Amino acid sequence: MSEKLTREELAAALEEMGERARIASRFLATASTALKNKCLLAMADALEKEKEVIQEANAKDIEAGEASGLSGAMLDRLRLTDARLKSTAEGLRVAAGLEDPVGRIISSTLRPNGLKIDKVSVPIGVIGIIYESRPNVTVDATGLCVKAGNAVILRGGSEAIHSNVALAHCLDRAAISAGMPEGAAQLLPWTDREAVSILLKMDEYVDLIIPRGGEGLIRAVVEQSTIPVIKHYKGVCHVYVDADADEDMALRIAENAKCQRPGVCNAIETLLIHESIAPSFAPKVAERLEKRGVELRGNDRFRELVPSALPASEEDWSEEYLDLVLSVAVVPSLEVAVDHINRYGSGHSDAIVTANPEAAENFLAAVDSSTVYVNASTRFTDGAEFGMGAEIGISTDKLHARGPMALPELTTYKYVVRGDGQIRE
Amino acid sequence: MSEKLTREELAAALEEMGERARIASRFLATASTALKNKCLLAMADALEKEKEVIQEANAKDIEAGEASGLSGAMLDRLRLTDARLKSTAEGLRVAAGLEDPVGRIISSTLRPNGLKIDKVSVPIGVIGIIYESRPNVTVDATGLCVKAGNAVILRGGSEAIHSNVALAHCLDRAAISAGMPEGAAQLLPWTDREAVSILLKMDEYVDLIIPRGGEGLIRAVVEQSTIPVIKHYKGVCHVYVDADADEDMALRIAENAKCQRPGVCNAIETLLIHESIAPSFAPKVAERLEKRGVELRGNDRFRELVPSALPASEEDWSEEYLDLVLSVAVVPSLEVAVDHINRYGSGHSDAIVTANPEAAENFLAAVDSSTVYVNASTRFTDGAEFGMGAEIGISTDKLHARGPMALPELTTYKYVVRGDGQIRE
Repeated sequence: MSEKLTREELAAALEEMGERARIASRFLATASTALKNKCLLAMADALEKEKEVIQEANAKDIEAGEASGLSGAMLDRLRLTDARLKSTAEGLRVAAGLEDPVGRIISSTLRPNGLKIDKVSVPIGVIGIIYESRPNVTVDATGLCVKAGNAVILRGGSEAIHSNVALAHCLDRAAISAGMPEGAAQLLPWTDREAVSILLKMDEYVDLIIPRGGEGLIRAVVEQSTIPVIKHYKGVCHVYVDADADEDMALRIAENAKCQRPGVCNAIETLLIHESIAPSFAPKVAERLEKRGVELRGNDRFRELVPSALPASEEDWSEEYLDLVLSVAVVPSLEVAVDHINRYGSGHSDAIVTANPEAAENFLAAVDSSTVYVNASTRFTDGAEFGMGAEIGISTDKLHARGPMALPELTTYKYVVRGDGQIRE
Repeated sequence: MSEKLTREELAAALEEMGERARIASRFLATASTALKNKCLLAMADALEKEKEVIQEANAKDIEAGEASGLSGAMLDRLRLTDARLKSTAEGLRVAAGLEDPVGRIISSTLRPNGLKIDKVSVPIGVIGIIYESRPNVTVDATGLCVKAGNAVILRGGSEAIHSNVALAHCLDRAAISAGMPEGAAQLLPWTDREAVSILLKMDEYVDLIIPRGGEGLIRAVVEQSTIPVIKHYKGVCHVYVDADADEDMALRIAENAKCQRPGVCNAIETLLIHESIAPSFAPKVAERLEKRGVELRGNDRFRELVPSALPASEEDWSEEYLDLVLSVAVVPSLEVAVDHINRYGSGHSDAIVTANPEAAENFLAAVDSSTVYVNASTRFTDGAEFGMGAEIGISTDKLHARGPMALPELTTYKYVVRGDGQIRE
């Protein structure tokens, strides 16, 4: 896209971007809700008005992708159809309508010496988003970051570079026309690794990195970054069918959690069945899932009950299939099920189906995942389903944000202390 | 302290510690408040009962420190006197009396489909503490981590290795006697860098690293770690005396913030004075501070008013003196003061002195620091002064914990979702 720069030139250019983002973030931090919303609405309008320019750029990416042999699924994710551009613009309008997460008083204390201490939500500052293929992330991430008062530095994948440049250019001009300073949303025009490796050390300018993409991308970011990273690793989710489960409910939940949309992170990859219910339940669930085209890979005890299942290997238990494949184990106890989930799972979403309240509470307390369910499908782990409005992702991290991550998680806080001359004795 | 291991042996030994910590953390996560408190009280009693053994070990460190030429101040920090051991044990008893931060319902939602979603505080898991010289950190950090339901892996400095081993051994046996599993609090017996560099990559076992020490230590940790780090960088704090300040109040606050305890992170290093009040205020504050033995280093405009001040260099503005030295600048406006603080400060604690509410609110909103004050000394940034009970440090980070970090910041949360068979349509 741009000429090849030396590492020094690249570092200087990135530092300039960092400096611009930092300055813009100071402005955004105290920007009114009205101004931020005006900016999001201007961005939405601009996307629709400049549809043709954006789609022309997108066509270049599609052409290059076809030439380089991208899969049909990848090409589909890349494509900015009319409908996708419209729903992306709509997403910005939805974000404009959400409550401003900045300026909430989280807690308030009056100390005996008269100091009033408010803990107040404030923007994080400058957020770096590193993502792959889908160009709509350029818009979605910018919208949420700006709504939460943050400047954003975007670095998309090389497959989408023409689309991303066109989108970012459009967003940037719209933001400026709405009264924002330059640098509120900047896209790196370089897609080589060197630019990312420089960016990940710019802790003086960037406060948080959110990588969106496959495990390989996220791991590479974590290895290099001196900036805090919030990780959205894979979803190896489980349903555990307890001894005291309602079998019909368990069938419905297992089927929904696996089949309703198998390619997403909150779909299950493993089903665990208590041995006392297995003789009755295992053949039923196998029939139900096989009818939906699911390939079953079981442990020995499951395969004794369901001979059509393939044998599961050790690797199967930590595999994120994202497909109509399910590993299944018959387990001797709730404790073994919990240990299995804590060992092989990814800390994303896990459910127990049981009519036994004690078993339910044990499971909810002992499973170390962002979201734990009793008697519901794991598919509900989602910002919208949780009533949060738009989400920027689902964190499998434990620090700062865990589970669905929406506008409040794009803020931090400060302590605001008001006195009338207090000094410390 | 222990034999030299090969890197492979060291990695294997550390992995075993990690595995033990992970298992202990599962137990701790669901341990009752009563059991955790019993454990802290048993630790406190054991410290007092085993005082002599601990002090013998401490004497070895002191001897080695004297032989290797540690400064008097360093030796003093190392020494476990009767009074220090007593107050360290007392700290554990205080922690036992604090509210359990685990199990709080942070928020609760009932969704239209009948799902009940609780956001509940839970322990983080396994916390690694990397620290220098003061051996009492071994006890303080363990107490707070265990109270919040976390297992802890400690890595102290080589100067305190005998003391730390004796303390950790004492704490570990007390914990086990109180009913905790092995591995709740483990100390690395190796003080070489290799052990730390392995530990910092153990993201499978360790959820959070808290480094306590100088900037060099913290930066080295951040460079290497693939585990999230909460940083406690330096405190370059400011008092800004606005045009509309009450001069007497400003004198008291400046003196207190600089002199009451100059060696701590919430003492100020820079004083900023609005030009319109400077002709009257600058000579007064200089006289007051010089009487207390403070060396002043000023910009040109300050030195015109206070000729006794030395000239400040560019480096002075970001220097953490931790001593009776103060850089002082006369500035033309509130905006310039805010820019100065955001540029040279460390995001710790900064105050404005003013009788003008609008100036106060502008300052509070625009200064990007963990704690911002109007008309009070920066010396109040402290867990106890904030009414939080014991603190594990003061974070200059923005993610997860900012400012004084106490028990609630040693927890994360999970979403607990209760249904009656809900599936996603």
